[in-house]
Amino acid sequence: MKHLLTAQDLARQDIERICDRAAAFAETQERDVKKLPALRNRTVLNLFYEASTRTRGSFELAAKRLSADVVNFTASGSSTEKGESLKDTVLTLSAHQPDAIVIRCPWAGAPALLADWTDAAIVNAGDGKHEHPTQALLDVYTLRRRLGALDGLNVWIVGDVLHSRVARSNVRLFQEMGANVTLAGPPTLMPRDIGVTGAAVSYSLDGVGEADVVYALRMQNERMQEAYVPSLREYSWFFQVDSRRIAPGALIMHPGPVNRGVEISAEATDSERSLILDQVEAGVVVRMAVLYELLAASRAGSPVREGAPA
Amino acid sequence: MKHLLTAQDLARQDIERICDRAAAFAETQERDVKKLPALRNRTVLNLFYEASTRTRGSFELAAKRLSADVVNFTASGSSTEKGESLKDTVLTLSAHQPDAIVIRCPWAGAPALLADWTDAAIVNAGDGKHEHPTQALLDVYTLRRRLGALDGLNVWIVGDVLHSRVARSNVRLFQEMGANVTLAGPPTLMPRDIGVTGAAVSYSLDGVGEADVVYALRMQNERMQEAYVPSLREYSWFFQVDSRRIAPGALIMHPGPVNRGVEISAEATDSERSLILDQVEAGVVVRMAVLYELLAASRAGSPVREGAPA
Amino acid sequence: MKHLLTAQDLARQDIERICDRAAAFAETQERDVKKLPALRNRTVLNLFYEASTRTRGSFELAAKRLSADVVNFTASGSSTEKGESLKDTVLTLSAHQPDAIVIRCPWAGAPALLADWTDAAIVNAGDGKHEHPTQALLDVYTLRRRLGALDGLNVWIVGDVLHSRVARSNVRLFQEMGANVTLAGPPTLMPRDIGVTGAAVSYSLDGVGEADVVYALRMQNERMQEAYVPSLREYSWFFQVDSRRIAPGALIMHPGPVNRGVEISAEATDSERSLILDQVEAGVVVRMAVLYELLAASRAGSPVREGAPA
Repeated sequence: MKHLLTAQDLARQDIERICDRAAAFAETQERDVKKLPALRNRTVLNLFYEASTRTRGSFELAAKRLSADVVNFTASGSSTEKGESLKDTVLTLSAHQPDAIVIRCPWAGAPALLADWTDAAIVNAGDGKHEHPTQALLDVYTLRRRLGALDGLNVWIVGDVLHSRVARSNVRLFQEMGANVTLAGPPTLMPRDIGVTGAAVSYSLDGVGEADVVYALRMQNERMQEAYVPSLREYSWFFQVDSRRIAPGALIMHPGPVNRGVEISAEATDSERSLILDQVEAGVVVRMAVLYELLAASRAGSPVREGAPA
Repeated sequence: MKHLLTAQDLARQDIERICDRAAAFAETQERDVKKLPALRNRTVLNLFYEASTRTRGSFELAAKRLSADVVNFTASGSSTEKGESLKDTVLTLSAHQPDAIVIRCPWAGAPALLADWTDAAIVNAGDGKHEHPTQALLDVYTLRRRLGALDGLNVWIVGDVLHSRVARSNVRLFQEMGANVTLAGPPTLMPRDIGVTGAAVSYSLDGVGEADVVYALRMQNERMQEAYVPSLREYSWFFQVDSRRIAPGALIMHPGPVNRGVEISAEATDSERSLILDQVEAGVVVRMAVLYELLAASRAGSPVREGAPA
Repeated sequence: MKHLLTAQDLARQDIERICDRAAAFAETQERDVKKLPALRNRTVLNLFYEASTRTRGSFELAAKRLSADVVNFTASGSSTEKGESLKDTVLTLSAHQPDAIVIRCPWAGAPALLADWTDAAIVNAGDGKHEHPTQALLDVYTLRRRLGALDGLNVWIVGDVLHSRVARSNVRLFQEMGANVTLAGPPTLMPRDIGVTGAAVSYSLDGVGEADVVYALRMQNERMQEAYVPSLREYSWFFQVDSRRIAPGALIMHPGPVNRGVEISAEATDSERSLILDQVEAGVVVRMAVLYELLAASRAGSPVREGAPA
């Protein structure tokens, strides 16, 4: 792997290799000394055109825990304010010879363009409504840690599928790992071509009681203003993920940040069946594994030995 | 000590231990090589909901000079823009397993809440109008360096006591160290329950000539608009700290940033009796001592030996 | 050299020494391991009052590749928002005992003031319409790498000379290195006292065909609104740098960020004769050489041996 652009590129063996390496890193994170020398002297650029506490933070921590240097570029405070094109920005940053560029941006497909413009490894940290592959990887990792495997698992992804890059990446990876995925939400928040995903589709939460895992998507306030739903209150009434609706043993996930009381109840967010904080915690080790995969494994020029992170 | 939440928690021996360690660190800062390995492989998160040159900068430098990794989160550019609650932000950051979270925020008491939500050590870097304990520590440190001890010292704290977290923390620590504190300012800028502090109160600068130390508080422009004072000009006339008003040998302090010509004259700011830059300089070493106290001493599980910072 | 404040201070031997050292650093940057220990344990503060992708980024990378610690201060998020004066900000930062302060600001001459207020080495990273000496150094470096020397070279600098700190620094360094410089642009965008530069002046691109190097300056949208030019379209018609206007072998430069189709055509930007990305790439190594010159050479107290960067 040279880049991580979309979840579509990841075969089951890639996903498993990255998750196994993340698990090896997780053991090192239990220690008092969390840093590993694997990426010492490497430089990672974070190029963030959208605000993000957890994604930028976990990439920055992941890189630093592997001893890489990190330089952050955010849209505010950069030349994009002066009207510089994405291409010129990337060519400029690329001339600084970074080893990897982690990009989050509102433009679907931009990370793939970047990969043509630079020698650096590109990591898609979310591009518009398109993909968010490291989120999907950490979600698979989180479920594997809890359940061992995803084969045959019934996973419901609930909410604003239309605008969700998380949904797009997760459907693909959950299926690749053997799970049966159902996408649920109001018809106005479902993409027209939803059939191509191969997932089952439901326009209500009837049947969610059979899910082993219920994954709530973030519902953004602006969707109501844009008239995709009559009101957040009505949306919550029909689609809020809530312990009473789901099976007693079902696990609850959410990519964060959570709108308590909208797409998920406060009780479900904080319940013992919630994996939400496990997901966040997985963020650092999975991103360590991704950066290691792209920067250390590819340069070594040989298959990386499993479980030998440093 | 697990956290530093308020100045109320600090007994005289704590203050002296931290100041002594800061003094030991200060010696190391005279060297050409200023870095110490004490917090190598530890991670400090700066979570700043308010702008601050000196506080964020001195915490960042303090952590880096102890070889810790630092990740900055500011309100602009983070999920708080998306409406995430403080609790969810902290749980998220906490899942990244930082060793310490340094928080500045406009909400009084928030740092104490954080301490319940995370395993990280919490350092209050200013919470609303409540407390700013590291400022008080560095002020005590600065006076001890100059004068040896604070016992019996007459300290006047002048200005907008009502809105000042600095005043609240400093009254407590100055008293704990044996000083006699007088709070002076217009009645509209004094808290109603000012008696509970145990400090003397003055509604004019009559008597400030007896002070050994005069500590000017920052006067914010918006106070005038909010009609706490008729005008900054009138405020300055009655309460500006100025060399002509105070005793020839009295020392002058200010937490910064200074409004020259408002709460303090330009001449007093730059005079030889001004400790203002000493206070700033103390910021780094005192914050090094605080981080060391919380991260290195507590983990060692034994009392830290005095004067053995690294 | 204690500071780098303006290009006026640099004699030919200084320029050559810095460029030679940058070239030595460039070799190290070809390696897989790009970091050098030269500035380990030193602290560099970036104090940026203006947005800048490439300048801040290349200073940050330069410092980190020499193993220095970097702390960024930007105007948004700092005490300048509270109205603190530049002097107080600098005294404050200086009390943190940085080894160098890199400053970009809108105030011509401010870096020279800073040098009086602090013991840190000051690097001017652009001050208003005044100077941008590291840009000029990296431009000389880029041309020397391509051509060996600048003696006798015909260089045209084209565009908004009036508002350009780049033009001001580059005229000086190009001339010091033996080049013949022509400044070209509409009369409204030329300074009145342009004669003092010793450069030839042209109010059209007639004659640009004789240039060995054509250096396009950035044309800012606001210049049109301020009525310096009737329209960007008219400006482009007369002054756009474009392959058809210039000699077949002429090299093309631009300080970035580029306004494609305004001061330079997209074709010229991306052509093989364009040195624009070489300039960006030079940014890191030249700034490494500048920081090394100021922090490592001056402290050693002896002339730095050529070609011995670490």
